[in-house]
Amino acid sequence: MEDPDLIPARNPFPAGIDERLSAQLAFLAEADKLKTILRASPLAAADRRENDAEHSWHLALMVALLAEYADEPIDIGHTVTLVVVHDLVEIYAGDSPVYDAASRLDQREREEAAADRLFPMLPDDQARELRALWEEFEAGETPESRFAKAVDRLEPMLLNWFNEGGTWRMPGASLDKVRARAAGVTAGSSTLGAATEALIDEGVQRGWVRGVPGADSAEDVEGAPRVEP
Amino acid sequence: MEDPDLIPARNPFPAGIDERLSAQLAFLAEADKLKTILRASPLAAADRRENDAEHSWHLALMVALLAEYADEPIDIGHTVTLVVVHDLVEIYAGDSPVYDAASRLDQREREEAAADRLFPMLPDDQARELRALWEEFEAGETPESRFAKAVDRLEPMLLNWFNEGGTWRMPGASLDKVRARAAGVTAGSSTLGAATEALIDEGVQRGWVRGVPGADSAEDVEGAPRVEP
Repeated sequence: MEDPDLIPARNPFPAGIDERLSAQLAFLAEADKLKTILRASPLAAADRRENDAEHSWHLALMVALLAEYADEPIDIGHTVTLVVVHDLVEIYAGDSPVYDAASRLDQREREEAAADRLFPMLPDDQARELRALWEEFEAGETPESRFAKAVDRLEPMLLNWFNEGGTWRMPGASLDKVRARAAGVTAGSSTLGAATEALIDEGVQRGWVRGVPGADSAEDVEGAPRVEP
Repeated sequence: MEDPDLIPARNPFPAGIDERLSAQLAFLAEADKLKTILRASPLAAADRRENDAEHSWHLALMVALLAEYADEPIDIGHTVTLVVVHDLVEIYAGDSPVYDAASRLDQREREEAAADRLFPMLPDDQARELRALWEEFEAGETPESRFAKAVDRLEPMLLNWFNEGGTWRMPGASLDKVRARAAGVTAGSSTLGAATEALIDEGVQRGWVRGVPGADSAEDVEGAPRVEP
């Protein structure tokens, strides 16, 4: 605990707690910081932005309730674990809003550096295990990680639906970019992808999403643009 | 959606989303309110109280990392699901701080009424499933629910450790009541229970917990009371 910025360094555990458990509790104390990392998404239930810990909990509940829509068989417990750990690196790397192109440029480097700093606080076996879970989520090459990513893309769409567009109205957002996020839902679940498209289509009708379908770049469109059927 | 206080009633989903999925998404939108239910516990990472959604996420991470300490074999995925859903009824019933005796008097009635209102928003099969998960957690009679309760008791102790006692300093708290919560940790994990006792013992030495061991009622003790070895 040489780093004074670490939460566990503020008050070392009593000597009666052995080294392995102390390391695990230290990591869990440091993980408290995820509750302070704000996302771009507004809550549906209050007039403030969502934090990463709340978001991760919401995804876990979505996995439990929506697993029937996964396009491939998934291990629900493993998928829940993926979403619980998927944003931990943002404790040091910060959130990289999807419609903020600048923040996405060096996102991978920042998150790799954060993983190098964060996971080794754990005992070696669990450090490797959590790193592997994070890498699995990021790669999105297993049925579980595809579904985890699907709910990660869907959840902010659901919040946007109750916020007159929410992040769809951010300066960097456009219909093409919003549809690209919906494609990430479809990659794990065609049913949830179709539902997401239905929300977006209605959002376009209401003027909540800028740009016209098929355009290569965002156009600032006043009011609700007409949409091809 | 006859109740205008329901989040999903604010903006019904497009007709293209079928009835079952609409009910599930409506429940998930209403569940956003868990992010607004404040607990008594202070965060370790910021100067504010924790909310139920953050707390539930933290428990899920604790289950994933501390499952090796369960005194009986547990299904980790099932245990994570228990902690993800265990506080949902507080959306309507509110939090009942453990050291606030008045709020605990009618807690069970309030939470039963909340369950009757909340879970039927889901399709019948999932309404029954979530109710059963909540009842399982509350009863604490399975290995998974005993371990879920253990981390539910341990997590605020960990936050208190980084807040010079935190809720241990609440007016209604006393050493006997704090030790009773630690017994709930021990019931699921003797190792985590012993670690919790070590935190409390040190907290007593520092004057963070009122009352002397073995006393039947809380005594207001100034400074650090002496403790039997």
